[in-house]
Amino acid sequence: MKKIISLFLAVCIALPSFSQAKGKSIPDLKGYVTLKCDFHIHTVFSDGLVWPTIRIDEAHRDGLDAIAITDHVEYRPYKSDIVASHNRSYEAALAAAEAKGIILIRGAEITRGMPPGHLNAIFLTDVDELDKPDYMDALRAAKAQNAFIFWNHPGWEAQQPDTTVWFDEHAILLEQGMLHGIEVVNEVCKLYTPEAHRWCLEKKLTMLGNTDVHHFFVPGKKRAMTLVFARSRTPEAIYEALMDRRTVVYYEDFIIGEEKYLKELFENALEWKVDKTENGVRVRVRNNSDLTFRLKKDSSDARLIYFRNTSIMPQVIAPKGEFSFTVNMRGGIKSGDVNFIVENFLVQPNEGMKYTLKISN
Amino acid sequence: MKKIISLFLAVCIALPSFSQAKGKSIPDLKGYVTLKCDFHIHTVFSDGLVWPTIRIDEAHRDGLDAIAITDHVEYRPYKSDIVASHNRSYEAALAAAEAKGIILIRGAEITRGMPPGHLNAIFLTDVDELDKPDYMDALRAAKAQNAFIFWNHPGWEAQQPDTTVWFDEHAILLEQGMLHGIEVVNEVCKLYTPEAHRWCLEKKLTMLGNTDVHHFFVPGKKRAMTLVFARSRTPEAIYEALMDRRTVVYYEDFIIGEEKYLKELFENALEWKVDKTENGVRVRVRNNSDLTFRLKKDSSDARLIYFRNTSIMPQVIAPKGEFSFTVNMRGGIKSGDVNFIVENFLVQPNEGMKYTLKISN
Amino acid sequence: MKKIISLFLAVCIALPSFSQAKGKSIPDLKGYVTLKCDFHIHTVFSDGLVWPTIRIDEAHRDGLDAIAITDHVEYRPYKSDIVASHNRSYEAALAAAEAKGIILIRGAEITRGMPPGHLNAIFLTDVDELDKPDYMDALRAAKAQNAFIFWNHPGWEAQQPDTTVWFDEHAILLEQGMLHGIEVVNEVCKLYTPEAHRWCLEKKLTMLGNTDVHHFFVPGKKRAMTLVFARSRTPEAIYEALMDRRTVVYYEDFIIGEEKYLKELFENALEWKVDKTENGVRVRVRNNSDLTFRLKKDSSDARLIYFRNTSIMPQVIAPKGEFSFTVNMRGGIKSGDVNFIVENFLVQPNEGMKYTLKISN
Amino acid sequence: MKKIISLFLAVCIALPSFSQAKGKSIPDLKGYVTLKCDFHIHTVFSDGLVWPTIRIDEAHRDGLDAIAITDHVEYRPYKSDIVASHNRSYEAALAAAEAKGIILIRGAEITRGMPPGHLNAIFLTDVDELDKPDYMDALRAAKAQNAFIFWNHPGWEAQQPDTTVWFDEHAILLEQGMLHGIEVVNEVCKLYTPEAHRWCLEKKLTMLGNTDVHHFFVPGKKRAMTLVFARSRTPEAIYEALMDRRTVVYYEDFIIGEEKYLKELFENALEWKVDKTENGVRVRVRNNSDLTFRLKKDSSDARLIYFRNTSIMPQVIAPKGEFSFTVNMRGGIKSGDVNFIVENFLVQPNEGMKYTLKISN
Repeated sequence: MKKIISLFLAVCIALPSFSQAKGKSIPDLKGYVTLKCDFHIHTVFSDGLVWPTIRIDEAHRDGLDAIAITDHVEYRPYKSDIVASHNRSYEAALAAAEAKGIILIRGAEITRGMPPGHLNAIFLTDVDELDKPDYMDALRAAKAQNAFIFWNHPGWEAQQPDTTVWFDEHAILLEQGMLHGIEVVNEVCKLYTPEAHRWCLEKKLTMLGNTDVHHFFVPGKKRAMTLVFARSRTPEAIYEALMDRRTVVYYEDFIIGEEKYLKELFENALEWKVDKTENGVRVRVRNNSDLTFRLKKDSSDARLIYFRNTSIMPQVIAPKGEFSFTVNMRGGIKSGDVNFIVENFLVQPNEGMKYTLKISN
Repeated sequence: MKKIISLFLAVCIALPSFSQAKGKSIPDLKGYVTLKCDFHIHTVFSDGLVWPTIRIDEAHRDGLDAIAITDHVEYRPYKSDIVASHNRSYEAALAAAEAKGIILIRGAEITRGMPPGHLNAIFLTDVDELDKPDYMDALRAAKAQNAFIFWNHPGWEAQQPDTTVWFDEHAILLEQGMLHGIEVVNEVCKLYTPEAHRWCLEKKLTMLGNTDVHHFFVPGKKRAMTLVFARSRTPEAIYEALMDRRTVVYYEDFIIGEEKYLKELFENALEWKVDKTENGVRVRVRNNSDLTFRLKKDSSDARLIYFRNTSIMPQVIAPKGEFSFTVNMRGGIKSGDVNFIVENFLVQPNEGMKYTLKISN
Repeated sequence: MKKIISLFLAVCIALPSFSQAKGKSIPDLKGYVTLKCDFHIHTVFSDGLVWPTIRIDEAHRDGLDAIAITDHVEYRPYKSDIVASHNRSYEAALAAAEAKGIILIRGAEITRGMPPGHLNAIFLTDVDELDKPDYMDALRAAKAQNAFIFWNHPGWEAQQPDTTVWFDEHAILLEQGMLHGIEVVNEVCKLYTPEAHRWCLEKKLTMLGNTDVHHFFVPGKKRAMTLVFARSRTPEAIYEALMDRRTVVYYEDFIIGEEKYLKELFENALEWKVDKTENGVRVRVRNNSDLTFRLKKDSSDARLIYFRNTSIMPQVIAPKGEFSFTVNMRGGIKSGDVNFIVENFLVQPNEGMKYTLKISN
Repeated sequence: MKKIISLFLAVCIALPSFSQAKGKSIPDLKGYVTLKCDFHIHTVFSDGLVWPTIRIDEAHRDGLDAIAITDHVEYRPYKSDIVASHNRSYEAALAAAEAKGIILIRGAEITRGMPPGHLNAIFLTDVDELDKPDYMDALRAAKAQNAFIFWNHPGWEAQQPDTTVWFDEHAILLEQGMLHGIEVVNEVCKLYTPEAHRWCLEKKLTMLGNTDVHHFFVPGKKRAMTLVFARSRTPEAIYEALMDRRTVVYYEDFIIGEEKYLKELFENALEWKVDKTENGVRVRVRNNSDLTFRLKKDSSDARLIYFRNTSIMPQVIAPKGEFSFTVNMRGGIKSGDVNFIVENFLVQPNEGMKYTLKISN
């Protein structure tokens, strides 16, 4: 990927829109709004510890656009006190969600031994239909409701004690249209699963990053999210985007996903300005987003001198911050490539995104 | 109250015990351990938003010794989903309390219009017995179970829109042995009620300070507490102490209560050392507790010179901090009184505790 | 002092100007800009520990408008290494002051035993003229240069070991036009001197609050200041204002000075809005400044109900904060007075400013 | 490098000594105390902005053992005010250094164009001897005083605008015994210079990390240091250690130096405990130091399962923190190697230290 910026062209690109009124400011992509979502959340209706309306308060406080409440169908430790349909946790939160402008998605967690482990089905119409002894029956019921279905925390040690295995059962689910995505990040398990990351890329599955919160979500803590690139801020548009794999995962300061989305986020978040200096150019960057970017010099065009004395730590472009660096050009050179890696934008498991800035003087 | 300290006596008093293994360090009193308690707490079994076990986690995290879960008897907004005895919130938390070493007390909030307003009954044996149409019947049932009964947030604006009134109904409850204490502080209402403070002193009622928490209690936030001076760390000893009015209220950095308890806390928290100087003495204080003390000079013995240039702000003895000051003695004076007020130790509504340090050179 | 605000009048007063581009935002007064000044500062040219230009960096960082460098005439511990005119510390800082837009005032500290102690002379033209054996000669030289002269830290224990005494010598200086002000606050000595406060009020002297910094001034620390109400941001206007006693002292969150100035600061910092409610009015205040206001209820109009449950702590209007309270009006009352004390605005030694808000419904 | 720890051996290694009474706790090495030093510091006697005694206050506050004041010989912007021997900045700080227990080393910065750039000579006896027009004469004078001489900030852009070059002149200095070390880190220039790191390894030069502070050193800021492994806490022992290359550089959370020292620091800082589990072992580590360790899994023994889901971020062992991880062993395996890289312990430019923990079950 290359971006050409030049002293003789207009170098200040028009600022893209930022849809989010609240919470972290993350740029939109062309044709899409970026929605901050958490599709894995529990309440007292399964083994969570809070009433469903708290989840709306937390989502609102944290600036989310949409959440799915996904109580376990099969595991309900408080069922002797709470005797209710599987749809109740969704219903109990709905009025609060509407009042606070949070999109609430009806979901459930199908909770089985490995394989196939735990799977979330969201965009359901009636969760009670999923309460079946055989997991294939439960998933067929979800499919019959046109659910979006994903595999939760595939690297969870309790279910995959040694390595993270893709079982034949998962291949069958994929073939039968009953597996659309995988959690690459699960916050409660503190789990980034490189294998899940690779499977999503290879098998064309949607990448998800969710909290799986059971307790309350502590104020001020960074929250794992699925960023969804949707045509509009509606449940239907989120569904369409998920089915079309238009997501990236946001976890700590990492963005994980398809290179095309990472590149566009990077470009839309940053404004570049290049000024001629005596020996080359000075490049100034303004970060209009709340994302962080950690840059490391990549194999370089030997005629350009930049990022010289900084290899001990990456160059950090802080949220809403500014950053500048000098590119010296040797002996009459008029243009060249500044190559670097954005360490925290993972385009492959543990591999940052390469980026080239084409400079002319 | 006077404390005599002298250069010619041993001035470093033996350090009293501090029972608390966790949380704020607050000194014990002679013959009693100081227990940190919260007697007003809600869960999803009435209009709280969390499952009862979270209350144990929070109490443990905050270093409390004992809590009472006191769900409303009459107000249960989730009762269509949660069909349960009024005893269930206590029962659901009991195993967790035992596991974490928290003393859990069975309680309930009798929730009526004013008068008499809301009253908590704790140390109950069966909460269901309190579910009666007439509040006097409910209170008689509590009394029959030997409950400790107190009036909650008497100055709550919703129920006392103008001034804070003691109704005839409260006098009747008091006479009939159905009112033992009052909340001087209620944290959810952000309420310190001077009238409640005065009534406790005049009518010999127990002072309480509780959170009345409904949502989760945010980690790191200071927590209103009732400090109970109990013969041992047992439920029975707490009951006996409450009935004997051996409590003070801890709220922000204030201690509110009977002067005798405030004085003993003050003395047990602080170690004094007096050294002779050319013109008088130097007094050094070490605070062995996590309490804060704010001292202001009181009408002074004119022959002693101390706290001269400091009247703009009180002298603060910080938690675990040290503090020292000089007392100059004029013209051959050999002893005298250092008089001050501990501003944040309230012995009357809005009135700090006076203290005299008798100094001899 | 009374301020009438009413539902039927326009209650949002037009926002006064705030001159300061940097540092704490403090309102201007009618006809005057409010300048943040420190008139007592040392460098390596006497017993300070830093080069004069650092004082400019610090002043700029802390948002000051003007400083005076006031090295001791008589005490120069590094004079074997630094052989220089007494004017050099001013001269060495001048270019930096001009570059950073700080008004730099030439000063000196006349440093003698008590009486008369230490006195600063500022707005000098040649400090070397003050280097005389007799302090009266030094002061006459300062007067001959039309200096503004003030007594430093009059309550300093080293010079006034018992009480803070006004000596005959000070009366003579005052009579002879060689004493114009007193430091009410000296930060290095951690000294607020109530006697100095009273003398300024009684003897019509200018109040000053300065740092007397010798070491570097730690970034982020609150800085004692003299706030000067000047006709313009020029040295001449500061001189005129000092001679006319148009100053207040800013120290921690206290403002100390003449009531008329404190009142105008209070009114210019705050925007009030009053809305009718069912039982009275709701008063909302927005603090447009970086000042803090701590309000306590004063003896009240018994027909109005306000600040009911809050006596344990003052009502704090935080910097740039908002604050609101309800005034209930009994039995058909249509107007009344809300009386309170602004605890941290000292109009007399240790005495807050009273303020009345006249409310009509 | 290998460390064998086993369930059947004693696994809790006796805690090594930590010499430092103040400041960061860093372990000693066998036979040596670890001294925290800064060998590049300026004062008003060259172009610094503070009096020499402040450097002692700062060193004491920051827990340093030794500092060298190294004012420029050739660059003295305040020399019209400060007329003094080049030895005066050392002499002016000496009494304060003795009072606070800081080892003060007499030094100077020989300040020339590139080549050879700026060089520090420390352990001088008379700085004035270095004031010569020809830099070779200045260095010969330093050598005649048995100085330890090092090249400052070799990658400084002002002197090396493109790449960081080792000039013939440096080779000559090295041959003639007038170059003993290089600054790998210079804090004022925010400079870690990978070339300097490599040259020290290749040419057997001593690695240094210094602040080059001119302004005051802000309290609370992390300070670049040279850690010196000395036979005792004396100037002579520091000199001997520097000449023997027994140093590492401490900068941010990085330790840079010879692998043998990094390994011993790592081992002396950490206490390991291994417990058998059902499927392998649980390894617990306690960090007794204030160093941070960031571990990444290295190419692994395929029979051991560890650090599985954590590749997005390194495993951090925080200062005084604890850390634990599980090693699962497949199919009857009884022992194996846990291989990882300590990312922030640089044994080569930008290359972390590899470490193997030999585990037996």
